[in-house]
Amino acid sequence: MNTEHIYETGLDKNQANYTPLSPLTFIERAASVYPDYVSVVHGETRFTWAETYARCRRLASALRNRGIGKNDTVSVMLPNIPAMYEAHFGVGMAGAVLNALNYRLDADAIAFMLDHGEARVLITDREFSPVIKTAIAKSGRDLVVIDVDDPLYEGGELLGEIDYESFLMEGDPDFDWSLPPDEWDAIALCYTSGTTGDPKGVVTHHRGAYLNAISNLLVWNTGAHPVYLWTLPMFHCNGWCFPWGIAAVIGTNVCLRAVRADAIFSLIRKEQVDHLCGAPIVLNLLANAPAELKQGVNHQVKVMTAASAPPPAVLQAMEEMNFPVTHVYGLTEVYGPAVVCAWREQWNDLPIEKQAEIKARQGVRYPLQEAIMVADPETLEPVPKDGETVGEIFHRGNIVMKGYLKNAGATEEAFRGGWFHSGDLAVWHEDGYAEIKDRSKDIIISGGENISSIEVENTLYHHPAILEAAVVARPDEKWGETPCAFVTLKDGEILSEEEVFEFCRANMARFKVPKTIVFGPLPKTSTGKIQKFILRARASEMSA
Amino acid sequence: MNTEHIYETGLDKNQANYTPLSPLTFIERAASVYPDYVSVVHGETRFTWAETYARCRRLASALRNRGIGKNDTVSVMLPNIPAMYEAHFGVGMAGAVLNALNYRLDADAIAFMLDHGEARVLITDREFSPVIKTAIAKSGRDLVVIDVDDPLYEGGELLGEIDYESFLMEGDPDFDWSLPPDEWDAIALCYTSGTTGDPKGVVTHHRGAYLNAISNLLVWNTGAHPVYLWTLPMFHCNGWCFPWGIAAVIGTNVCLRAVRADAIFSLIRKEQVDHLCGAPIVLNLLANAPAELKQGVNHQVKVMTAASAPPPAVLQAMEEMNFPVTHVYGLTEVYGPAVVCAWREQWNDLPIEKQAEIKARQGVRYPLQEAIMVADPETLEPVPKDGETVGEIFHRGNIVMKGYLKNAGATEEAFRGGWFHSGDLAVWHEDGYAEIKDRSKDIIISGGENISSIEVENTLYHHPAILEAAVVARPDEKWGETPCAFVTLKDGEILSEEEVFEFCRANMARFKVPKTIVFGPLPKTSTGKIQKFILRARASEMSA
Repeated sequence: MNTEHIYETGLDKNQANYTPLSPLTFIERAASVYPDYVSVVHGETRFTWAETYARCRRLASALRNRGIGKNDTVSVMLPNIPAMYEAHFGVGMAGAVLNALNYRLDADAIAFMLDHGEARVLITDREFSPVIKTAIAKSGRDLVVIDVDDPLYEGGELLGEIDYESFLMEGDPDFDWSLPPDEWDAIALCYTSGTTGDPKGVVTHHRGAYLNAISNLLVWNTGAHPVYLWTLPMFHCNGWCFPWGIAAVIGTNVCLRAVRADAIFSLIRKEQVDHLCGAPIVLNLLANAPAELKQGVNHQVKVMTAASAPPPAVLQAMEEMNFPVTHVYGLTEVYGPAVVCAWREQWNDLPIEKQAEIKARQGVRYPLQEAIMVADPETLEPVPKDGETVGEIFHRGNIVMKGYLKNAGATEEAFRGGWFHSGDLAVWHEDGYAEIKDRSKDIIISGGENISSIEVENTLYHHPAILEAAVVARPDEKWGETPCAFVTLKDGEILSEEEVFEFCRANMARFKVPKTIVFGPLPKTSTGKIQKFILRARASEMSA
Repeated sequence: MNTEHIYETGLDKNQANYTPLSPLTFIERAASVYPDYVSVVHGETRFTWAETYARCRRLASALRNRGIGKNDTVSVMLPNIPAMYEAHFGVGMAGAVLNALNYRLDADAIAFMLDHGEARVLITDREFSPVIKTAIAKSGRDLVVIDVDDPLYEGGELLGEIDYESFLMEGDPDFDWSLPPDEWDAIALCYTSGTTGDPKGVVTHHRGAYLNAISNLLVWNTGAHPVYLWTLPMFHCNGWCFPWGIAAVIGTNVCLRAVRADAIFSLIRKEQVDHLCGAPIVLNLLANAPAELKQGVNHQVKVMTAASAPPPAVLQAMEEMNFPVTHVYGLTEVYGPAVVCAWREQWNDLPIEKQAEIKARQGVRYPLQEAIMVADPETLEPVPKDGETVGEIFHRGNIVMKGYLKNAGATEEAFRGGWFHSGDLAVWHEDGYAEIKDRSKDIIISGGENISSIEVENTLYHHPAILEAAVVARPDEKWGETPCAFVTLKDGEILSEEEVFEFCRANMARFKVPKTIVFGPLPKTSTGKIQKFILRARASEMSA
C-alpha cells in the first residue's frame, strides 16, 4: 500500500466536480430562481432578473456577432444606468474584458486608455459625447461605437453607428454563453489615476471578482434581496464588485445618474433602499442634507464607505438617521475594498468620538482575502503592532489583481517579495487593525518631526464650521516644511484665519499646527479625490 | 499588436495574488481579529478563538511530531465536543485528511473503514470504547490511538496510548502551519452507507469545503457572530461544512454530546443560541417538547433541516416558536447540503399547509454550486419541468467530491456524462425547483441516518430460516422513516418477530434494525423481481 498517493489516484478534476469560479454564474441563478424579482430600476423602468439576464445574453451575443470574443476589450463610458450594469455580465459572457472608463476624465486620458487597452468596442452615453468625440478622434483605434440613448438625460449627441437598444436586438436572448475556460482569465481592465506618468491598467480575473463579490456580502451582512442604491460609480473598480454581488443575493439595483441629495432621499423612500456605498463626500452630503429631504425615511439604510473615515460629526449624524456606517479600504489593485474595520460589539458603548476614532481605522483583511501586513517597504519586515511605527500596507491573496496591462516592470515592482505593495503608509495597532497614517507623499517633515497631514485634517474636520480640509507641505526655509491647510467652510459659515489657528493650537501638538490657512473650494479628481498635487503646487508657489 | 495575448502576458500567478482556497484560513482570521470572542462552549468550558486556534495548532504540531503529514488519514470517533471541532482544523493544518467516523456504526463497519482509509491515527471517546476496542482488534492497522477523556461523560474505558489533552501538550501552540499546496488536495474522507457491498469513501477537497462553508452562510443569512448549537453530528459530512463556516463568521459553537430536548432548550436559553441544524427528528423533538422546557426562549432560532421536509404540523409548531425553517438537500458526495428550497416572500401569505407543501421541495442549487438538473438516468436528457415526470437529480460544480477512495469504477460511474449521479429520483417543477419523489437505491432515512435497505436484507438472508427478505421505508412520525422488513420463511421453518429482532441486533448497528417485521409471501413481477413499490404502499398504510 502506498499511503502517499491514495488521495491522488483516480480523483481528478472533471466536468462534474470542477467549474471555473466566475461571478457571471450569479446572474444565471438569479434569473432561474427568482425570474420575476426586480433586478434593475432606472426612473420608471423596472427590469426583472429574467429580463436583465436576457438583455445580458443579447449583449454577449451581439458582441460575438461583431467578432468580439476572448480577451477583446470592450470599453464603456457610462453612468450608473442599466446598460452599465448589463455590461458587467454581457461583456464577460462574450468572453471579452470590460474596461469601464472614468467619465470625469478628459479626452486625452480617455484616448490614451482606448489605445493602451486596445479597445475594440466603445459603449457611451450622450452625456459624455463632448469628451468622447474628441477622444475617439485622438485615438488610433478602429472602434465599434454604440450609443446609449437614455431618455433620462437631455443633451449631448449620438456619436456611434448604432444605439444600444438596437444593438441588443441584434443579439439572441437565449445565447448559449459559456464560462471562461480558466478562472484566471481576465474579467476587467480598470485604469488607475496614477500619481505620476501614464495611468496603469489593472487587470483583474474571474476568480478574484467572484471572491470579492462574496466577501462584500459577508462583510456587510446584506442578507437576501437587498435594495442597493448606486451612489458609487460602477466605473470605480467595477463598483467594488457589487454589480456581481447584488446578483448573487438577488437584490435590486437602483440606478442613479448623478449623486444629488434630493434624488438619493427620494429613491431611498420610493424604492425602500437599504444599502448604499459612497465616498466620504457622499456621507457628508447625506448628513448635511436639509431636514425636509430626509422626511419619511424611517427604515435602516446600511452605508459602506471607503477612502477615508467619516469624522465624528458625520458619523453621529448618520447614526441618528439610522444609517450605520461600515468603513472599508482598498484600491483598484485589490478589486476595490479588501480590508474592513470589522466592528466589535463592545465598541457600541463608547462615546461617539471614540467610536469615530476606531472606525477611522482601515482594519483587517476581508474574510476571503488571505492576508495584509504593515511592513517596512524595503525589507518587508512587519513593523511592531504598537500603533506608532509607520510601515507600508501589503496585501496578499486571491483578491489581488493579475497585474498591470503591458507593464511588466510595474507589475514586478508591485509584487516584489510576494506581496502587493499598496503604497499606503500605516501603523499596525496592537489588535492587528491597520490605520493609514498617510500616503507616502502626505507626510510633512517639519523641523525633523513627522507630521501626518491626515491627522491635521481630522482635527480640522472637528470644527463645526469646516466642511472640508486638505493639508499639504509648504516648503519653508527655517523648518524644511510646514503644514499648509486648505479649508472650505460650510454654507453660511464665517471663520477667520486666527480662529482656525486657535482651534488647532487647542487641539494638537504645537509643531503640527498649520502655519498657513487658505480658504476656498478644493480641487478634486473625477472620482472626488482631493488633488493634493495641485495644492502642493500652490503651497510651493506661496513660498517662492 | 497581438490582441490575443495582452491579457496573458506578464500577468501570471504569484505568491501575492494567488492562494489555494481552504477553509483552514478562516480560523486564522477569527483568532487574529476576534481573539477574545467565544469560539466553543462545552458545559462549563468556554474557549476563545485565540485558544481554539492555539489548540488546533498544537494538534497539528503534535500530529507532525508523530510523523503524520500530507495525505495521511486521521480517523476520529467523537461526539460534538471541542476535540471534534478542533480536528476539523488541526488535522488539515498538519496536511492530513480527516476521516470522521459515524459513532452509530458497529465494530465491523468501523474496522473496515480504518483499514480501507488506511488510518494512521484514531482519536476516540470513552463513550465508544466497546465498539472501538473490537474494531481496533479486527483492524489490521498499526494505529496511534488517542483518547478524549471528557469529564462530561461517565463510563467506558480509555484504550489508547495517550489522552487528547496530553497529546495537545506535545504540540506547539505557535506551530507554523501552511495551507495545502493545491486547493484540490484532500481535506476529508467520509464513508457513505453504500447500498450494496462495502461503504464508499467520499474524498472531498479544500476548495469545495471552502465554497460550501460560505454557501451555507449565504443561504441561511447567518450574519456575523451566530451562536450555533451542534445538534447535527459533526461526523455527518463534516457537519455540513459548518465547523469551517462558523469560524468564517466568528460565531460560537455550542457543543452537545447527545440530542435531548431538555439540554437543547436549556442551551438555547443559556447561550442564546440562534442557529441550529437537524434532521426532521430533531425538529419533531423540539416541536413536541413539553411547554415547560420551552419556557423563557423568546428570541428567534433559525433552523436548517435536510433529508426530508417537516410535515405541516411540525412546521407550524416551529413557526409559532419563532424557529423559522430552511429546507436544504444534499448528500455526502456534495459536502452535505448543496441544494436549498430558496424561499420567496410571497409564499409567506399562503396557508401553512401550502407552505409546508412548498417547503417539502428540495429546491435549487446553492449560490456557489454550478448546476443541478433532473434528467433521464441513462441519457442525461433533462426531463420536462412539469412537476410530474420523474428523473434523477444530477449535480455539477465545485461542491462535488473528488471521487471515491480506491474505487475508480464507482467514481467513473458516479461521474458518467460529466454530472454527479445522486441516485435520488425527483420531479422538476415549472419554477425549476426539484422535489424528490423516491430514492432509486432504496435508502431509508431514519433519524437523519441513511440506512441501506439492501444491507439490511443481506443480513436477514444470513438467517438460516429466512428464504426471502425485502426492506422498505415505513413513514414514522418520530424518526421520519424506519426500516420495515417483509420476510418469507423457508418451508417448515418457524420464526418469531422477536427472534428476527434479536438476530438483527446481533448483526448490525442498532439504528439499522427494522422496527417492523411482516411475515408472508412477497409480491413479484412476472420475471420474479420483488415489487418494492407494493411493499412501500403497505408500509405506508400501516403508518396511517
